[in-house]
Amino acid sequence: MNNNLLESFKPYRDKVQATLKDIVAGHPSSLNPMLRYHMGWQDENGNPRREEAGKFIRPILCLLSCQATRGDISRILPAAAALELIHNFSLIHDDIQDDSYERHHQPTVWSLWGRSQAINVGDAMFTLVYLALIKLRDNGIPYEIIVGCTNMISTACLELCEGQYLDIEYETRLDVTVQDYLDMVVGKTAALIAVSTAMGAYLGSENGKVINAFRLFGKELGMAFQIDDDILGIWGTKESTGKPANDISQKKKTLPVVYALQHSNGEERKKLEELYLQESIKDNDIAQVMEILNNLSARDYAQNLAAQYYYQALAQLEATGLDKSRQAPLRKIACFLLGRDY
Amino acid sequence: MNNNLLESFKPYRDKVQATLKDIVAGHPSSLNPMLRYHMGWQDENGNPRREEAGKFIRPILCLLSCQATRGDISRILPAAAALELIHNFSLIHDDIQDDSYERHHQPTVWSLWGRSQAINVGDAMFTLVYLALIKLRDNGIPYEIIVGCTNMISTACLELCEGQYLDIEYETRLDVTVQDYLDMVVGKTAALIAVSTAMGAYLGSENGKVINAFRLFGKELGMAFQIDDDILGIWGTKESTGKPANDISQKKKTLPVVYALQHSNGEERKKLEELYLQESIKDNDIAQVMEILNNLSARDYAQNLAAQYYYQALAQLEATGLDKSRQAPLRKIACFLLGRDY
Repeated sequence: MNNNLLESFKPYRDKVQATLKDIVAGHPSSLNPMLRYHMGWQDENGNPRREEAGKFIRPILCLLSCQATRGDISRILPAAAALELIHNFSLIHDDIQDDSYERHHQPTVWSLWGRSQAINVGDAMFTLVYLALIKLRDNGIPYEIIVGCTNMISTACLELCEGQYLDIEYETRLDVTVQDYLDMVVGKTAALIAVSTAMGAYLGSENGKVINAFRLFGKELGMAFQIDDDILGIWGTKESTGKPANDISQKKKTLPVVYALQHSNGEERKKLEELYLQESIKDNDIAQVMEILNNLSARDYAQNLAAQYYYQALAQLEATGLDKSRQAPLRKIACFLLGRDY
Repeated sequence: MNNNLLESFKPYRDKVQATLKDIVAGHPSSLNPMLRYHMGWQDENGNPRREEAGKFIRPILCLLSCQATRGDISRILPAAAALELIHNFSLIHDDIQDDSYERHHQPTVWSLWGRSQAINVGDAMFTLVYLALIKLRDNGIPYEIIVGCTNMISTACLELCEGQYLDIEYETRLDVTVQDYLDMVVGKTAALIAVSTAMGAYLGSENGKVINAFRLFGKELGMAFQIDDDILGIWGTKESTGKPANDISQKKKTLPVVYALQHSNGEERKKLEELYLQESIKDNDIAQVMEILNNLSARDYAQNLAAQYYYQALAQLEATGLDKSRQAPLRKIACFLLGRDY
């Protein structure tokens, strides 16, 4: 993500960070050091780490959506924090499921404390999501709206679980189609971004049509964002993704690979199947996969599809019917998120 | 649990079962077959299993507590169901953490579908807890009370995670004291039983003192229940626990063992330490552990402690200040739960 954007939203990120710290501190337990470690606030020995708030994409989308609908963002910080908590709960469990030793250049929770404790830490983080939403009451948000947020977030969580299910299920399959892939991304990535924008709008507006347009804006944006991430996972550098290994060596069924599996023929198809049936893809086989992807223009295909979702997202933002000036900050973040010119 | 009791509460159990099925069916996803399998409603191939509702101890305690405080139990079934969902979410994750292949004489979810999917299934079950609470609204329960229930349940979940943390942490320690053990059981077992009775009372009464007495009744009952379960795990038969192996072979730090580790001396202490430092305890070593437990009267100690908690539970039930006749069903279930004469 472009650093200028991160800078321009620093006041928001600082507020979300403070809210998150309040929520975790408000529920002391033996798990807190692991929660704080995962959030990047302290190292594994409990020493504070140099402050560097996360990107907080989901909280920022929520706050901007609320602001666009004339809501008061200072009242809804716990909802924005709840979105970051869900995202992180899912990362902690995802790292166990994916056997990932590192995230953001740091050992993952499970690789330090074991899988059993990491399951626990994720569960505790998930519970804090709901305790965060209850804090909305302190800011005068009516109970009915809190229940509404609980409903929206829980529904998105189920979609997240469904996406995660498909992702795992695809690991052992070679017949995953682009459509299968898209079904998975709807849950795994888009659902949480969709609820971020929808909940922000719900906290700012009572207009169901507006809230729904915000939901679709987030959903389309989430699809584009995941496809961009897939492209980075193959053609990006280690620095930009914060991940130690290439998605190819881990045999991830990301869009370019799924596209290639679906559209390759003859020798190429045979070679791809052979490589993707191995335990993992060795360094000297990666070049072969890349060559096949290049021959099939898989990168172009993915970039075009991401662009389509991006434009659909902007169309949904238009469909909110809000003044252009109110749409501007969301347009800007969408733009930056996808590395496009504003 | 005594079968007569199960029979006498059958109408309650049937209603809870129907509510649970509604909740799961209301949120269709690829995970549902695994959720339904874990709940015992179908086998691993999706074929219906002969109906046999679970014991539903927590939902029944909730319903009886609501009834005792003059609440209308037909309105609070989703809350009772939510308690069963939490219990089952924690079992699914617990089975992964404990490496348990069987539960109730059936393969566990992870042993059929793998650990990654089982983490997911647990997460989905956990999400359904909150969607169940939202269904209270359909029965006219005010939003404020729904948020109150969400708060109570989430707080109990954090205690559950804490108890689970301690349980895992104790696995590799030989210096666990009875006090450490009790701290663990407060979270691992008592918290959920306490919120069952407290939430039932909260849904029936506005009197904070009464609700708190119900919470303490559940808490003390939960402590007694866990200690009884520990005794069964060593001296019970396979049929009564539904578990394939003895807690000793799995080196579980249950109360009799923790007591023996803390109170043994000399040769016995050395022998226990030696056995509990092994990977697992072999069949021909189990007799040695049993002998040491018997020499130290560890079973009597545990039975006495369970009895203490049981009488404290009954004292808290008295402290609710309700008529004896209103207390009677709860006294009866407490009695039966702990295999005592009414």
